[in-house]
Amino acid sequence: MVSKQMYALGSNRSCIREIFEFGLKRAAEVGAQNVYDYSLGNPSVPAPKEVDDAIREALATLSPIEAHGYTSAPGRNDTRDAIAENLNKRFGTQFSRKNLYITCGAAASLVSTLRALTVDENTEFIAFAPYFPEYNVFAATGGGKLVVIPPDIPHFQIDFAALEKAVNPNTQGVIVNSPNNPSGVVYTEATIQKLAEVLNAKQKEFGHPIYLITDEPYRELLYDDMKLPFVTKYYANTIVCYSYSKSLSLPGERIGYVLIPDEAADSEAVYAAIAGAARISGYVCAPSLMQHVIARCADVTPDLAPYIRNRDLLLSELTRMGYNCAKPSGAFYLFVEAPGGDAEAFCAAAQKYDLLLVPGTGFGCPTYMRISYCVDYEMIKRSLPAFEKAIAAFK
Amino acid sequence: MVSKQMYALGSNRSCIREIFEFGLKRAAEVGAQNVYDYSLGNPSVPAPKEVDDAIREALATLSPIEAHGYTSAPGRNDTRDAIAENLNKRFGTQFSRKNLYITCGAAASLVSTLRALTVDENTEFIAFAPYFPEYNVFAATGGGKLVVIPPDIPHFQIDFAALEKAVNPNTQGVIVNSPNNPSGVVYTEATIQKLAEVLNAKQKEFGHPIYLITDEPYRELLYDDMKLPFVTKYYANTIVCYSYSKSLSLPGERIGYVLIPDEAADSEAVYAAIAGAARISGYVCAPSLMQHVIARCADVTPDLAPYIRNRDLLLSELTRMGYNCAKPSGAFYLFVEAPGGDAEAFCAAAQKYDLLLVPGTGFGCPTYMRISYCVDYEMIKRSLPAFEKAIAAFK
Repeated sequence: MVSKQMYALGSNRSCIREIFEFGLKRAAEVGAQNVYDYSLGNPSVPAPKEVDDAIREALATLSPIEAHGYTSAPGRNDTRDAIAENLNKRFGTQFSRKNLYITCGAAASLVSTLRALTVDENTEFIAFAPYFPEYNVFAATGGGKLVVIPPDIPHFQIDFAALEKAVNPNTQGVIVNSPNNPSGVVYTEATIQKLAEVLNAKQKEFGHPIYLITDEPYRELLYDDMKLPFVTKYYANTIVCYSYSKSLSLPGERIGYVLIPDEAADSEAVYAAIAGAARISGYVCAPSLMQHVIARCADVTPDLAPYIRNRDLLLSELTRMGYNCAKPSGAFYLFVEAPGGDAEAFCAAAQKYDLLLVPGTGFGCPTYMRISYCVDYEMIKRSLPAFEKAIAAFK
Repeated sequence: MVSKQMYALGSNRSCIREIFEFGLKRAAEVGAQNVYDYSLGNPSVPAPKEVDDAIREALATLSPIEAHGYTSAPGRNDTRDAIAENLNKRFGTQFSRKNLYITCGAAASLVSTLRALTVDENTEFIAFAPYFPEYNVFAATGGGKLVVIPPDIPHFQIDFAALEKAVNPNTQGVIVNSPNNPSGVVYTEATIQKLAEVLNAKQKEFGHPIYLITDEPYRELLYDDMKLPFVTKYYANTIVCYSYSKSLSLPGERIGYVLIPDEAADSEAVYAAIAGAARISGYVCAPSLMQHVIARCADVTPDLAPYIRNRDLLLSELTRMGYNCAKPSGAFYLFVEAPGGDAEAFCAAAQKYDLLLVPGTGFGCPTYMRISYCVDYEMIKRSLPAFEKAIAAFK
């Protein structure tokens, strides 16, 4: 007498979570320092000092009612103003508070956006493998479904021929995630330009807007002077879903936003529908104290040095051992070709050395595996012999 | 090309919000002190000192990663342990962490519970007028619908004859809210006992569980030594939806829980389905810093003195003027019979004196109006002549 769909969603633990739980069990058996857990995307760089300072300042200077009281559903004005100003300064855009809806993180941003755009049970959203598996769940929130385009191996840009075939009159949105989880790849400007061209043509063909939903929690985690093309400047019907989980290392605090530019088709109706979807999902407002923090910290940038150090050590050592991995330009993941070509088999073998990697199967890319390098540097050093042993077994 | 339902939900402002916005406009015109806004249920008592102390302590003693990192989806163990211990101490129950799922407030608790229990498009949930109008929205989140039992005037307990007629094979749950918004009424022990009796008989008749969903954000706001019958002790298939919004004056922080007792039918399946519903709604975890606060403040009780003082002044003055209002035993609302019998008409007339009351229409009780007395005491004093003028016009 409960919803079968909800029961299944609540009782089937994700593959990543299974691996993580296995790691906890092994840590109890052999000691935490002998388990090399690369499974989770939990930032290992602490939140910048400015965050806790902003919390203390808010408590010291605001009345408790202002600090902890309801905000309007779209969010505080000062928070939205600070975000708009930060974006405009960096990307030459002209957003204002009315383009922003503050949310409880990227998951809430995506659920609200996808539900707003789901017009009936035929609604489709397109994602590109490798993709965050939870998109399947989010696309289903209003009864729509996710269509996945196979990966463009080995560069992980976009297979445009496959995209052109997949878009149809039921396509309401296309989801991109750059820098990408799990590949760490950043879409080039050429990719974004070509994507805009294809979608513009398809919009014309089908006579209705196709929204480009850009899921950007890793936007500020960019390395090697990589420049990120800011998508709203290339395609009018763009909706940005953002989170401070990774950039300010606040994943538990649930704070992010949806950005709906004026130039997006029916932008006011889309904004209203996103507000309605947030309402029916039980979101009253985003956490108020964290809204105060963002108002004060919109310009704060993360400390990337530890991630770069981790990436560089792993990349050079794994390459030396014979692993095949491209250098990622963003996020904190290495996406590595599974020696032997079957990531499930390789990851199972690696587990015997207490080396916990995530097979790419759930990401739509079963010949690769994900290594989350948002971990302690010393753990990476300790884990290197396990990487050696694992690849030796497949040589 | 957006969902019509979501657009309607996002663009139709609630009646209460309309009145509140009118108040802001009038405040700009005639000065804030000349507008008497009784529209919102925003706690006017500040969060207890212990809350901000707990935040400062968490920042001082925890690593940033522990303070702000992801928690498990059901919530931190120490938070759930503290809540279970508090309930067990007060109500003689035997809950443990596995009975608790921490949420982003009561709205999230209700949405997750109702979606978990929605098995198909015929699913019905019953509520008793006067009721919180947002229940209509929450019941629709998984495609179910709300059935409203007319008010039991003037005592606002339960019309059991109407309930017995309304329960049918599609009834998956019955929602109660005691202390009640908008009436301030607390259900008596006899009411809860009779409710349990009726639902037990109906469960037997239809051969499936009917869950009693008790929405309890006002549980700790009880006056005059009123004792609240704790519902899980009277009816096995009870699910408690709680929020700290009112008890700790943290409405903007979005923190609460769902409690699923072991004795509830299929309790593990219900728990899993609630987890699944939270997941499809985009709830990753409840705000982590606030989870730390609740772990430290589960036993903190609110300062009720200001609410009692407000209630007593309003009650004696309005009664003296000829208004007909019962003495509420909980929450921070007075529910008053509209002089003339038409609350919409009376509230419109009162607005001419900048006296902002909410007609009971949306609550399913169009002959009454709600006065939220979680306001400044001085505003109440200033507002009394407006109450005099308003009733004079209807005599």
